[in-house]
Amino acid sequence: MVFSSSHLENAVNEFAKLPGIGKKTALRLVLHLIKQDAAEVQHFSDTIAQMRRQIKFCSKCYNISDAELCHICSSRTRGNDTICVVENIRDVIAIESTQQFNGLYHVLGGVISPLDGIGPDQLTIDPLVDRIQNEAIKEIIFALSPNIQGDTTIYYISRKLKEIPVKITSIARGIAFGGELEYADEITLAKSISNRIPVEHYVSAAK
Amino acid sequence: MVFSSSHLENAVNEFAKLPGIGKKTALRLVLHLIKQDAAEVQHFSDTIAQMRRQIKFCSKCYNISDAELCHICSSRTRGNDTICVVENIRDVIAIESTQQFNGLYHVLGGVISPLDGIGPDQLTIDPLVDRIQNEAIKEIIFALSPNIQGDTTIYYISRKLKEIPVKITSIARGIAFGGELEYADEITLAKSISNRIPVEHYVSAAK
Repeated sequence: MVFSSSHLENAVNEFAKLPGIGKKTALRLVLHLIKQDAAEVQHFSDTIAQMRRQIKFCSKCYNISDAELCHICSSRTRGNDTICVVENIRDVIAIESTQQFNGLYHVLGGVISPLDGIGPDQLTIDPLVDRIQNEAIKEIIFALSPNIQGDTTIYYISRKLKEIPVKITSIARGIAFGGELEYADEITLAKSISNRIPVEHYVSAAK
Repeated sequence: MVFSSSHLENAVNEFAKLPGIGKKTALRLVLHLIKQDAAEVQHFSDTIAQMRRQIKFCSKCYNISDAELCHICSSRTRGNDTICVVENIRDVIAIESTQQFNGLYHVLGGVISPLDGIGPDQLTIDPLVDRIQNEAIKEIIFALSPNIQGDTTIYYISRKLKEIPVKITSIARGIAFGGELEYADEITLAKSISNRIPVEHYVSAAK
């Protein structure tokens, strides 16, 4: 691309560094900003810079937070004996949106994946074990992606918790609501048969 | 979406204002920025704000520019008797990338489109007519989108130039290189037959 302005070129290059944004999309975004009021663009820019400077990670669950403790960890109305273990912050947002879970979270920061060079030490596994030992935690719910990395991580953490009297569960795998049986992959379908549930549970879950 | 941090929420909302960026994509971009160095994010933010403050439009052709006149209008090596009339700045970048045009540009800022409330007065048509009257322009090449709005704009400007001795052309319409004849739409195919060109031109164009 040949640009007629170095300011334009620099801005396009900055946007194109973002994941999933190519040069053409970056140009479209920058040309959109050029059409906006200067004050509005200044506000956009200030908000991003301020976010990066002031954002914190909760010292307990590693969720993104405005304070030392996130609003979930410091809440008095949430059950504090259950921890839902997730890979990243997006998973917290997704589960919170369902309004079905009222316990605490623990953000691992990824899953064990030797091929990507991610071992247990890069994740917040030790702080999780500390929490389970020191807080009155009764149940750990793993809500990790259903793949080898997720399963390896569940296996690794479960072994670390062997000596601790805590119930360990994982979110249910199966055919998604609205999914067509014939299009489900074989592993999911096989697991959904071997992990079948009594119909009274099924009916109450569907309500 | 339920956010655990107001800084995160504000940044996501700012990104989600951009065209084609939904809340989920905005969240992905912001979480990417959180992982970057604070200095890098500050640089991103400063570059955008600076771009918006300092960017200018060329006083002659309305292209984006760092100076009063853009680098094309102020170039001494470009032919200054031909103006290529385009809708927006992206078209200038696209044509410049072909390296096939060595004349000047004129950015209309849109095309006449009464349904969208865009009349001739919202476009830079009067400055274009002034340029053609006052500079030694020999040819105007319209490079507008092949639709009713583009054709209306060509017709409107051509009528304004009726009294001025200037050659008026439009970029060729036809079957795109690499395009399959059978998949071309009827209008394009019909136009490509009625506007057929001698084979010696075709061969030199394909080189």
